[in-house]
Amino acid sequence: MLNFEFCAPTKFVFGRDGQHKVGQLVREFGGSRALIVYGGGSVVRSGLLAQVIASLDDAAVEHLELGGVKPNPRSDLVYEGIRLCKENGVDFVLPVGGGSAIDTAKAIADGACYDGDFWDFYCGRAKVVRALPHGCVLTIPAAGSEGSTSSVITQLDGNLKRGLNSDFHRPRFAVMNPELTFTLPRYQLACGITDMMAHIMERYFTNTPDVALTDRLAEALLCSIIEAAPVAMADSQDYESHATLMWAGMLAHNNSVGVGREQDWASHQIGHEISAKYDTAHGASLAVVFPAWMQYVCKHDVKRFVRFATKVWGIDPSGKTDEETALAGIAAMKAFFASIGMPQTLEQAGGKAEDIPALAAKVVNGKTGHFVELLPPQIEEVLRLTCEQK
Amino acid sequence: MLNFEFCAPTKFVFGRDGQHKVGQLVREFGGSRALIVYGGGSVVRSGLLAQVIASLDDAAVEHLELGGVKPNPRSDLVYEGIRLCKENGVDFVLPVGGGSAIDTAKAIADGACYDGDFWDFYCGRAKVVRALPHGCVLTIPAAGSEGSTSSVITQLDGNLKRGLNSDFHRPRFAVMNPELTFTLPRYQLACGITDMMAHIMERYFTNTPDVALTDRLAEALLCSIIEAAPVAMADSQDYESHATLMWAGMLAHNNSVGVGREQDWASHQIGHEISAKYDTAHGASLAVVFPAWMQYVCKHDVKRFVRFATKVWGIDPSGKTDEETALAGIAAMKAFFASIGMPQTLEQAGGKAEDIPALAAKVVNGKTGHFVELLPPQIEEVLRLTCEQK
Repeated sequence: MLNFEFCAPTKFVFGRDGQHKVGQLVREFGGSRALIVYGGGSVVRSGLLAQVIASLDDAAVEHLELGGVKPNPRSDLVYEGIRLCKENGVDFVLPVGGGSAIDTAKAIADGACYDGDFWDFYCGRAKVVRALPHGCVLTIPAAGSEGSTSSVITQLDGNLKRGLNSDFHRPRFAVMNPELTFTLPRYQLACGITDMMAHIMERYFTNTPDVALTDRLAEALLCSIIEAAPVAMADSQDYESHATLMWAGMLAHNNSVGVGREQDWASHQIGHEISAKYDTAHGASLAVVFPAWMQYVCKHDVKRFVRFATKVWGIDPSGKTDEETALAGIAAMKAFFASIGMPQTLEQAGGKAEDIPALAAKVVNGKTGHFVELLPPQIEEVLRLTCEQK
Repeated sequence: MLNFEFCAPTKFVFGRDGQHKVGQLVREFGGSRALIVYGGGSVVRSGLLAQVIASLDDAAVEHLELGGVKPNPRSDLVYEGIRLCKENGVDFVLPVGGGSAIDTAKAIADGACYDGDFWDFYCGRAKVVRALPHGCVLTIPAAGSEGSTSSVITQLDGNLKRGLNSDFHRPRFAVMNPELTFTLPRYQLACGITDMMAHIMERYFTNTPDVALTDRLAEALLCSIIEAAPVAMADSQDYESHATLMWAGMLAHNNSVGVGREQDWASHQIGHEISAKYDTAHGASLAVVFPAWMQYVCKHDVKRFVRFATKVWGIDPSGKTDEETALAGIAAMKAFFASIGMPQTLEQAGGKAEDIPALAAKVVNGKTGHFVELLPPQIEEVLRLTCEQK
């Protein structure tokens, strides 16, 4: 186990009707003028935005609105949000939505307290030392952004998708009402399921020895997600399965299963390039990249893949070589992703094989991954594996 | 899953050499004059106290000392600490030790900001609305007090042992260096192992349906503790097993495996009465009470005990009735406690069968437990089961 620091101070308000507490929560964390950040019309149509506004009004919290966040959230809306905050004395940022709204809000909160370009933070030219407080109302279980330090933004100028981790990115509160996810299109839910599993697996595949405790916690989360996913996909009104997915999505990314371990993150980096180029949903990119990455790196530590296959996917190892067991686990995962409607190949995810060298060349810093370090030629090989239908 | 709120803001600094960061951590959380609270001579003899003081000096944090905390910590030292804080303008309480030092520090932090008797909080006559900040250096993995809302104090006047949960009881930081536990007497370590397992099991036995996610997380922790315990007991220098126990002990009690579930806590209440009367170590009382409680309540939900037996203790259910499987799990747990040197009976824990009616009558409010509610006659029956050597 490696030395680590872990601080996850977000106040989670989990369960039915939490959105009616938003006003008092903003007040509790010092807000008096909030910028509500949201995406398309669904939070308007569902009546959630009106409920949030009513709660803010009840608590005498002033509010402005910034709608229009898109999946793979972009810099243009961040600039707009920063302008609104600065011009109106906003002291609290309140995303209502999924990871895209929350990540946008985090970037706005950073930029609102900074004289330069917020993109300085995302490309490493500056470090966040001050930010507006933010708290969220979650409507999509997946991103984990409600409990994590991370935010990922696409800079339109250059089509660069970059992530930034900062302690300032932990929301002060997160309202998590599973009922708010009932109206989610099932494809988006499936993307979320894939994304939360990926967050766990990025941490699971490690070279750090003596991490059985976090291994077991990761396996517990994955098994619970795999159990809840088909129930939630089949019945959009089933509270318990949606609740399990929502809470698991937070735990998958608040780093509670990642502490003390070297983590990989190559699949996320490669997936980000696919999403940035084709505007593929984040989860869909991961569904394509992760199995290919596993096939490519499996031999690096086949015992870990055997553990993954047996503990998470219930593969019976009897009569199989370690490599056969490992590959059976990867195949089971791929079949699971297919069963919830995720793409299986780069082409199905909207990509083209001919773009592979360009995609590989674009990955940040020219290398990625810690379980196995990948340079562009290896990234190309991983991407070629995403073109094969198995 | 029940609605819940979860907020665990403590900053954990885990790993080797963390004690040298104490000064800067106290500063980070606003302290400039700290009261160091510790127990017997071990933190002095080991040199830890000197290291902590050096770190405070480096950060220009003034400090006072209050030594002499005993297991089952008592009110007299709390009163003394409150007096020291009030007379000297202390603005931060810094326990260095195990659960007893931390629980004492929490009570001092509460009382230092209160004009009345701190005991008002512990017996429900008043509610904590303000407290000094506190942060700890942990030397005993067990109590979970480093990450929890709880504190348990024994009032000498009347020999009452009472717990108090408060959001003000979450430490601002917790320095967790597994090496600091190497010098711990093995009996104390065994008590700690028992205590952390009990913290998980109090949450595990629930009537709340649809809690597979937290079930699995609880089982993951228990399996890791059961795996690490014999290694740590046999080799006091083994870093990894001590690290696993230390982190598991925190997770066992920060409520991450308890959210959304009705919890029991009868065994803790009964154990507190044994500890209060005979000054039995907290873990030792639990080792005696928990198996007896399980035998007594097993039929209430035998399927849950079958799950516990198979998932945690690896009992093979084939050829057994559900009740036989359940009892085999309880027997395996009892054998595990014996293997680490815990008492098996009330007598071995320093108690007497003739005291049972008085012990049962003393349990707070005359009833305890949520999985199964126990009144004094039932508590007596549980206590009688603690007298049987199995």
